Amino acid sequence: MSAARGRRRGAPPPRGGGGARTPARGGGGQQRRAGSTNRSRSGRGPADREQSARPQSRPRGLGGDHVEGRQAVRELLRAGKRRVHEVLICEDAHSAATLAEIVDLAGDRRVPLREVTRRKLDEAALTAAPQGVIAKAAAVQPAPLEELAKPKGNAPPLVVATDGVTDPGNLGAILRTAEVAGATGVVLTSHRSANLTPAAVKAAAGAIEYLPIALVGGLPAALAKLRDGGLWAIGLDGHAPDGLESLRVGDEPLVLVLGAEGRGLSTLVERRCDQVVSIPVLGRIESLNVAAAAAVALFDIARARGQQPG
Amino acid sequence: MSAARGRRRGAPPPRGGGGARTPARGGGGQQRRAGSTNRSRSGRGPADREQSARPQSRPRGLGGDHVEGRQAVRELLRAGKRRVHEVLICEDAHSAATLAEIVDLAGDRRVPLREVTRRKLDEAALTAAPQGVIAKAAAVQPAPLEELAKPKGNAPPLVVATDGVTDPGNLGAILRTAEVAGATGVVLTSHRSANLTPAAVKAAAGAIEYLPIALVGGLPAALAKLRDGGLWAIGLDGHAPDGLESLRVGDEPLVLVLGAEGRGLSTLVERRCDQVVSIPVLGRIESLNVAAAAAVALFDIARARGQQPG
Repeated sequence: MSAARGRRRGAPPPRGGGGARTPARGGGGQQRRAGSTNRSRSGRGPADREQSARPQSRPRGLGGDHVEGRQAVRELLRAGKRRVHEVLICEDAHSAATLAEIVDLAGDRRVPLREVTRRKLDEAALTAAPQGVIAKAAAVQPAPLEELAKPKGNAPPLVVATDGVTDPGNLGAILRTAEVAGATGVVLTSHRSANLTPAAVKAAAGAIEYLPIALVGGLPAALAKLRDGGLWAIGLDGHAPDGLESLRVGDEPLVLVLGAEGRGLSTLVERRCDQVVSIPVLGRIESLNVAAAAAVALFDIARARGQQPG
Repeated sequence: MSAARGRRRGAPPPRGGGGARTPARGGGGQQRRAGSTNRSRSGRGPADREQSARPQSRPRGLGGDHVEGRQAVRELLRAGKRRVHEVLICEDAHSAATLAEIVDLAGDRRVPLREVTRRKLDEAALTAAPQGVIAKAAAVQPAPLEELAKPKGNAPPLVVATDGVTDPGNLGAILRTAEVAGATGVVLTSHRSANLTPAAVKAAAGAIEYLPIALVGGLPAALAKLRDGGLWAIGLDGHAPDGLESLRVGDEPLVLVLGAEGRGLSTLVERRCDQVVSIPVLGRIESLNVAAAAAVALFDIARARGQQPG
């Protein structure tokens, strides 16, 4: 851990303190979103029951109740954190080691297991390749934003936030990589982003069973809250002039903000970032896929922290 | 460039010289694959015409003639390296900047452009989201293996080889990342791997227009050839005990070999590697997706080379 870390704890990181800050692109045009984010708490008494106290946010939930794919179903059962209603398994696919483990785990946990024909399984599937197994479970429950910003063992908090990543495969890949890289949590927005659809759940390969996920109405407000808690907000955007190598605070508490495919970070989100960095492009095409960029940045941060597998 | 580089040029790198070499896992059981790979050269005269001298390889070609997605079609037209027969574009999608650029490029290059209804475009599409544009072009021509192992400007050769990556989305993501990371080429096998299907082409986002791609009958023989040319063969496998941080030859000529999803590197390929490394796992789930692992390793190598965007 960095010796510099304690200095800012509890205070918002100074803007631009982590390196040259990219000036925010563009000007107005985002006021409507800012307003709707603020509105959710206005004119209310003590919010002792959070769900009913925020009707405007209309949280649609994270989803994640339909789980396909061998790794995703295995981790669902291994983790044992949410109720599993039923596992459907293809009757002619038992020889695969992971499916055999799933059968054992379902037995241990007294989860109803139904053997079905391949045709039945494919009819029940919501992705192109369920890999012989589907589970129905309780939806993933969002975690409070504060929980994400807690240190994990000796490692300072590492939060990943997505600013409108819409492709479920990308979202799932980001979740999987974040979990493997030791992130303390992920922030998703209830608008403009993919949630835990079957395709995202499958691509996440079980990461959603272990990684706390917060669902927020607006990302700028969530970033402000995380910065108030002592985290640096670091944007990742293919258009940023600063390269990843200029990031100096990788070993300090931080939230990495990923821009949407194509469009990148929104102006309002970029303004809340202490620094925005890009992955250097050494070839002819313009940019990395957002999930690949996230992988490069997250493992760069893990290296800065000197983290070893544990 | 590393000062140590010249030493081994033209000679095979010493086995295990790049660090502790992972012993090959398992023993027999792979002999059939080994046999079929060796067979392609047995009992033949001088192979002056390689294609006809290896009938067993039955090269099916790289594919890549059906191009969907805005970035993929734009780079196809920008690069201008292969004949484009026709571009279909959705009549109500012109306002997007990339589509407008595609229309201009098609005009410049005298490529027939056909405006069609969204229904017609979706009927002609072979991926779930063609993004309003489809191009029909000549197939991608494989490059000779030797071409991949040439330095690119001041940078030593960086080749990426896939050992049975079967998911088209993963293959496309690997190609895109390899191009952005400055790779000099990619090796695909004509058996057991995905080729340039429409989904792979779309995910590659134009990388196939710039990145030389060799198509080989067997990967072990190709690795032997690349090692004879002075490249280190570095395997990437989630099961390897050595972490990526133990890789010491990132700034020397090398081929990075990616294992298949799930199964990892085959025994025979692993035996041809000078070192096999893994990305450290800091979370609870078992491994990264192969495309994410490739991104982390390739940019680690780019950093070791001190490469700057140019």
